[in-house]
Amino acid sequence: MPRFIKTIAKPEGAPPGTLVLVGEQRTGPVRIRLIDYDASHLEERELATIADAFPLRDLPTVTWINIDGIHDIDLIQRMSRHFGIHALTLEDIVNTGHRPKFEDFDTYVYLVFKMLSYDPATMHIRSEQISLIVGPHYVISFQEAVGDMFDPVRTRIHQEKGRLRQRGCGYLAYALLDAVVDHYFTVLEAIGEKIEALEGDITDEPGSDTLRAIHRLKREMIFFRKQVWPMREIVSSLIRSESDLVSMSNEAYLADVYDHTVQVLDTVESFRDVLSSMLDLYMSTISNRMNEVMKVLTIIATIFIPITFVAGIYGMNFKFMPELEWKWGYVAVWGVIAVIALAMVAYFRRKKWL
Amino acid sequence: MPRFIKTIAKPEGAPPGTLVLVGEQRTGPVRIRLIDYDASHLEERELATIADAFPLRDLPTVTWINIDGIHDIDLIQRMSRHFGIHALTLEDIVNTGHRPKFEDFDTYVYLVFKMLSYDPATMHIRSEQISLIVGPHYVISFQEAVGDMFDPVRTRIHQEKGRLRQRGCGYLAYALLDAVVDHYFTVLEAIGEKIEALEGDITDEPGSDTLRAIHRLKREMIFFRKQVWPMREIVSSLIRSESDLVSMSNEAYLADVYDHTVQVLDTVESFRDVLSSMLDLYMSTISNRMNEVMKVLTIIATIFIPITFVAGIYGMNFKFMPELEWKWGYVAVWGVIAVIALAMVAYFRRKKWL
Amino acid sequence: MPRFIKTIAKPEGAPPGTLVLVGEQRTGPVRIRLIDYDASHLEERELATIADAFPLRDLPTVTWINIDGIHDIDLIQRMSRHFGIHALTLEDIVNTGHRPKFEDFDTYVYLVFKMLSYDPATMHIRSEQISLIVGPHYVISFQEAVGDMFDPVRTRIHQEKGRLRQRGCGYLAYALLDAVVDHYFTVLEAIGEKIEALEGDITDEPGSDTLRAIHRLKREMIFFRKQVWPMREIVSSLIRSESDLVSMSNEAYLADVYDHTVQVLDTVESFRDVLSSMLDLYMSTISNRMNEVMKVLTIIATIFIPITFVAGIYGMNFKFMPELEWKWGYVAVWGVIAVIALAMVAYFRRKKWL
Amino acid sequence: MPRFIKTIAKPEGAPPGTLVLVGEQRTGPVRIRLIDYDASHLEERELATIADAFPLRDLPTVTWINIDGIHDIDLIQRMSRHFGIHALTLEDIVNTGHRPKFEDFDTYVYLVFKMLSYDPATMHIRSEQISLIVGPHYVISFQEAVGDMFDPVRTRIHQEKGRLRQRGCGYLAYALLDAVVDHYFTVLEAIGEKIEALEGDITDEPGSDTLRAIHRLKREMIFFRKQVWPMREIVSSLIRSESDLVSMSNEAYLADVYDHTVQVLDTVESFRDVLSSMLDLYMSTISNRMNEVMKVLTIIATIFIPITFVAGIYGMNFKFMPELEWKWGYVAVWGVIAVIALAMVAYFRRKKWL
Amino acid sequence: MPRFIKTIAKPEGAPPGTLVLVGEQRTGPVRIRLIDYDASHLEERELATIADAFPLRDLPTVTWINIDGIHDIDLIQRMSRHFGIHALTLEDIVNTGHRPKFEDFDTYVYLVFKMLSYDPATMHIRSEQISLIVGPHYVISFQEAVGDMFDPVRTRIHQEKGRLRQRGCGYLAYALLDAVVDHYFTVLEAIGEKIEALEGDITDEPGSDTLRAIHRLKREMIFFRKQVWPMREIVSSLIRSESDLVSMSNEAYLADVYDHTVQVLDTVESFRDVLSSMLDLYMSTISNRMNEVMKVLTIIATIFIPITFVAGIYGMNFKFMPELEWKWGYVAVWGVIAVIALAMVAYFRRKKWL
Repeated sequence: MPRFIKTIAKPEGAPPGTLVLVGEQRTGPVRIRLIDYDASHLEERELATIADAFPLRDLPTVTWINIDGIHDIDLIQRMSRHFGIHALTLEDIVNTGHRPKFEDFDTYVYLVFKMLSYDPATMHIRSEQISLIVGPHYVISFQEAVGDMFDPVRTRIHQEKGRLRQRGCGYLAYALLDAVVDHYFTVLEAIGEKIEALEGDITDEPGSDTLRAIHRLKREMIFFRKQVWPMREIVSSLIRSESDLVSMSNEAYLADVYDHTVQVLDTVESFRDVLSSMLDLYMSTISNRMNEVMKVLTIIATIFIPITFVAGIYGMNFKFMPELEWKWGYVAVWGVIAVIALAMVAYFRRKKWL
Repeated sequence: MPRFIKTIAKPEGAPPGTLVLVGEQRTGPVRIRLIDYDASHLEERELATIADAFPLRDLPTVTWINIDGIHDIDLIQRMSRHFGIHALTLEDIVNTGHRPKFEDFDTYVYLVFKMLSYDPATMHIRSEQISLIVGPHYVISFQEAVGDMFDPVRTRIHQEKGRLRQRGCGYLAYALLDAVVDHYFTVLEAIGEKIEALEGDITDEPGSDTLRAIHRLKREMIFFRKQVWPMREIVSSLIRSESDLVSMSNEAYLADVYDHTVQVLDTVESFRDVLSSMLDLYMSTISNRMNEVMKVLTIIATIFIPITFVAGIYGMNFKFMPELEWKWGYVAVWGVIAVIALAMVAYFRRKKWL
Repeated sequence: MPRFIKTIAKPEGAPPGTLVLVGEQRTGPVRIRLIDYDASHLEERELATIADAFPLRDLPTVTWINIDGIHDIDLIQRMSRHFGIHALTLEDIVNTGHRPKFEDFDTYVYLVFKMLSYDPATMHIRSEQISLIVGPHYVISFQEAVGDMFDPVRTRIHQEKGRLRQRGCGYLAYALLDAVVDHYFTVLEAIGEKIEALEGDITDEPGSDTLRAIHRLKREMIFFRKQVWPMREIVSSLIRSESDLVSMSNEAYLADVYDHTVQVLDTVESFRDVLSSMLDLYMSTISNRMNEVMKVLTIIATIFIPITFVAGIYGMNFKFMPELEWKWGYVAVWGVIAVIALAMVAYFRRKKWL
Repeated sequence: MPRFIKTIAKPEGAPPGTLVLVGEQRTGPVRIRLIDYDASHLEERELATIADAFPLRDLPTVTWINIDGIHDIDLIQRMSRHFGIHALTLEDIVNTGHRPKFEDFDTYVYLVFKMLSYDPATMHIRSEQISLIVGPHYVISFQEAVGDMFDPVRTRIHQEKGRLRQRGCGYLAYALLDAVVDHYFTVLEAIGEKIEALEGDITDEPGSDTLRAIHRLKREMIFFRKQVWPMREIVSSLIRSESDLVSMSNEAYLADVYDHTVQVLDTVESFRDVLSSMLDLYMSTISNRMNEVMKVLTIIATIFIPITFVAGIYGMNFKFMPELEWKWGYVAVWGVIAVIALAMVAYFRRKKWL
Repeated sequence: MPRFIKTIAKPEGAPPGTLVLVGEQRTGPVRIRLIDYDASHLEERELATIADAFPLRDLPTVTWINIDGIHDIDLIQRMSRHFGIHALTLEDIVNTGHRPKFEDFDTYVYLVFKMLSYDPATMHIRSEQISLIVGPHYVISFQEAVGDMFDPVRTRIHQEKGRLRQRGCGYLAYALLDAVVDHYFTVLEAIGEKIEALEGDITDEPGSDTLRAIHRLKREMIFFRKQVWPMREIVSSLIRSESDLVSMSNEAYLADVYDHTVQVLDTVESFRDVLSSMLDLYMSTISNRMNEVMKVLTIIATIFIPITFVAGIYGMNFKFMPELEWKWGYVAVWGVIAVIALAMVAYFRRKKWL
């Protein structure tokens, strides 16, 4: 549940722009990876301090500073002073509970969105916040922890002939966004497989584990939807944006990301529908079984209760019970019992319970 | 479930434009059928290699190249180079998990949508992706496998006086789209019949098979809706499109396709409503039956349990039980039993259980 | 179910404009009724052949040709040639599975919509398709079968001072549309009465008949809604239409029809809500009864099972059972039984089951 | 149910403008109350005949004619001739089944809406139709029956310094509308109290009365919503209206009514949500109780059934049953019984049923 | 429930502008706190009478008058006369049942919205109405009771270098709004924790307490949503507002508040989904348990009922029962019993009930 709501960055009522890390508190050094490239040149290194990146700010090459960790408030503040980042942006970066959004500040655009990952064992979707600051000659990306999410993008930068090397910061931002959206599909695929497995379970042997798993997946889909829903607006704002920083000639690619986002959301909705439908099936199956159990109980009980009564009658110790003296009394009782039992069976047959 | 989500074409994070077949992997040669026609001329043949079609590209006749199979990446790339197809289009053609869409590239328009077919035995809807590239003098269609979907269109082309022969590529594209939408009705009709049959089953003899069938149809309708929903936007974009390639003077026909698509979606919604309602009916019927079973059990048990107790009492072996010695004791017990039984029956009558 | 989906007019893949009757196949002659009128003049007759109406086409009087039956393809084609009707319109006329719509062809406007009738015995809503072709001096109406739907309109035409006689074709079209929408209220009223009756049944004596009736009405409302929903758009298009043929000075009247259509749809939604709510009530009532049945069973069983055990104990034949020899043993057993029974009753009282 | 749908005014197919009273048929004289006022002058009297009001039509004072009863068709027609009311308006006035609406005829505006009243004993919401005709110097209001709804407005008119006296017909119309909307709150408040009471019942002692009451309230809320929903559009049309008759400088007041209407609808939605939620709670509570009942039955039965069997065994009359001869046989049986009973209790403990 | 609906301020039908306190009636003195500041100057004091604040109205400094208590009608009227507040605004201030809204009167803007607080013990959300009047040089805030809600804002005003001191009344209004929205998160967080706790309960030991708690939270979320939903419109109107009083250069900050409000509403929706899903889980769990209980009962009963019957048979006292005389009769009966019991167990095994 804490995933659904995190306190916003500042202590309640604090002035906006107060930097307080929200979410999982981490310690340890923050990893800063820098890639500086243009069509002909490529430099990749790890920085000890953010200040090492400052000289590259105004060079015409694309400078990508990837910061894994947002708990070093000091680092973020120094960076913001140098790159001229607005106080509200800083607040958003360290507030991991933020709703995804896109903001256009004249000198840079700011994007915040969620990376999702799925743990099949616990059926748990984890959300990590990604912030992108896209300036004229630099892209700064923030992740909550060290991750390998963007490794494919790095690989593509290394290919000298790739499109990434030819194009500017906007295209790099697109590539990072695209990598995140691609990953949503991977998560959905894993969940799709789990759903398929659960459907088999319902038919074969529905237990309370199945029930809990369906319920959990439903919750995860609510969570997934909440995280990804704003992405649509973000990408659509990017496409419509008049900022030179992101949109220049990338519309076709962004439209592609938009399509994928819509497809992700469509699939999430379908999964929710399928899960609801499965819950109905589960409940119906349980009802069916209960019905069957009840029928067996009823059949056994209604056959034996009357004949046991008959036996009880002739177990009484009255002095004067003429039947007890009859020669064929015992046999006659068996006859009576047989008649009762057969009548009951006939009744159940007619009711189609047998 | 894999139908609901397929990984997108490129390995996660790969640059856009990477061609990797998504979906069912097929081998074997790809079938290329070419029809080249205008009002007075018609040529139909099967091509051994895609290069045979290249000379026809710029002729004023309508050249329809139908490619059954999208697993020959090499073929697709050669074609794209000759016809000037964008890298993102190629990626979409081989990605069978793509959401239907319409894109206008200045030199051609690209349409991707789903053909659906229904197997009544398994109550399974299969989806096959159709891609159309419509240029000034050519239409290229891609199917996942060899199919007879477009045979009626071929027949119409052979009719020299038909409208198809008089009109250009846009009209051919419309005819292909129309054939696919028409087929949706065939699928819905088959499902409608199944639903009708299931309704009879619920009233007569509801079993867990009925339940599973309703559930499966519900899922298939979710799937159907997901596949067809974007068609509306596509056809509507086509109508509004300013591209000369598709719209010229075909608005009335496209509006017709739009109407049909809306009708398909209306019907899908109605089917979903009907199926939900049937599930309710099923559950209520089961509840009703359970109730009846319980009543029988209760009636039998509540009549016999007390009288069995009476019999039990006089089966006790106490030395001093005066009733046992009475002459009419046994008869009296039968009287007591009769009174209890009749009282119970009267009680059930009052409760309207009998 | 066949009501929900009918194949579209042409065999799948046939060229648009192929005339194939969809829906109930009828034979026998088609009835053609003609009324030709203006403020001062009125002529009404039945035509043997459609050609008899052709001379009236361009006269300034209002010519209303009502054709009861759409299975005479030849008649329709001759008419279309003379009046210049588009091929797609013809296809729509004979396709009774068509979605209601409004189309403006410059020389005429085409309206297709549904007449509904309700059979209280089977709780079945029947839908019949009405097509209207409204030209400058003529209105052609098509019904599937001979019907008395439009008789009130005929009566009004006969009243020389009525508004109908003063006004043109557009007003006649409005009057026909209005007659159909008025009839929806009649259908809803009949259904409303049935719903009211069912509500009484639920409270008094809910059986599986009640359940099936609710379910059926729910389905009929889904069907009703599907048929009438597009009417809103149609009338609203008519109002906004720039065509001189229908709208001239009839806006106020059309707005009235629009209001009625919205009211019909509101009522359908309310009925659906009420029916859903009734189903809930039904299920709850069944649950309540089951609960009561279970309580009775439990009370009887839990009182008698323990005391029957006590009786069973003293029915054992052990040689050494001291209690059996006691003078007051038998009386003591009755005491024990009374204590157990009273304790049980007290327990149930505390639990509020009694 | 008849409340949900009333036939429209005219017999089906009758020409528009036919005056036929729809709804409860009343007889007896119609009460006509007239108030004529301006800032300095006030005259209030009851009229014997509508003609008495005609001279006041064009005086610059505000003339409010309140007509309690719409069954005097003749009165309405005479009035309409004098005030120049459109035939469709007349039809709407006597059709109490009409959907609320606002219409602007150049010389007057017409408002029709619903007054609701609630009877706590039967939990029934009654709807009465109010029609307002607002002209330049007169307001005519129609109620179905004699009512005290507008008494507060009358009181305010009597206050010489009140705003009502200073302002024109538009403000009077606003005041009447406001009185009706205010009354919705009174109805909602009464329903809110009933809902609160029912919630207590569910927790304490849920019976089928509670169920029926929840169900009835749900239906009443469906009805309420249907009646009030169109009010939003009406008031919003009034605000946007360009008619001098209503809007002049009353926007702020109308905006207030709009706010209240939205608040009413919000509350209705909340009530529906709360009632649905209560139904869920009711059903869950019933399920819970049933579960508890079943547990008690199961515990008693599963403990006593086996030990009764043991007693039954030693009640058999076989000649050769060694246990019966044993000195400690009887005691041993008690031991066996105790062991079985304790084992069962232990089992239930482990299952957490005890 | 009274929370969902409060009568509006004026007695039904009273003229608008009548001041009648709606909601909790309070007595005692009203606390008036005044802060007057600009970048260089700060004065904070408590006022004995509202008149003390009047001289500050037109000074260029920001004058914030916070009034804790709205039951002193006299105070409010004196204030309104001095500051020129519209009668409808006064009515809204004392009507605590008002829907949140934003209104622009030329000389001031009026904001009314809800502060929420949550009591974890009773799981009850309390709503208090906040009114803001923002003029060119003053902000007047009304709270229902003395509260510490705005203390953080006061603290920020004391920081001489804070942004609040540099900016005008619009920014102060934003800060107060922001403080309220921030508090929504605190409430949601507490509820989120409760939901998490309840989820554990369902899995471990679902009782009727859990059920009631889920139900209550659902109701609280309905209430929460009803209170906060209009905030979106308010903030969005503020952003779009052309009034100089609020918007000047505060757009970025208001956009931030807007984002937070949307996030709050998203979370409320997610919570409602999660709670619904939990209710389903609860019901399914109960069904599952019932099923298990029934199975145990059925197994015990169906094994013992037949064998008890066998024992009953040989407890009969017929003179001529040959089996009773047999040497191995008793042993044979045990054999029969064993066979029956084993057959039953085998049957249950096959049915997978064991």
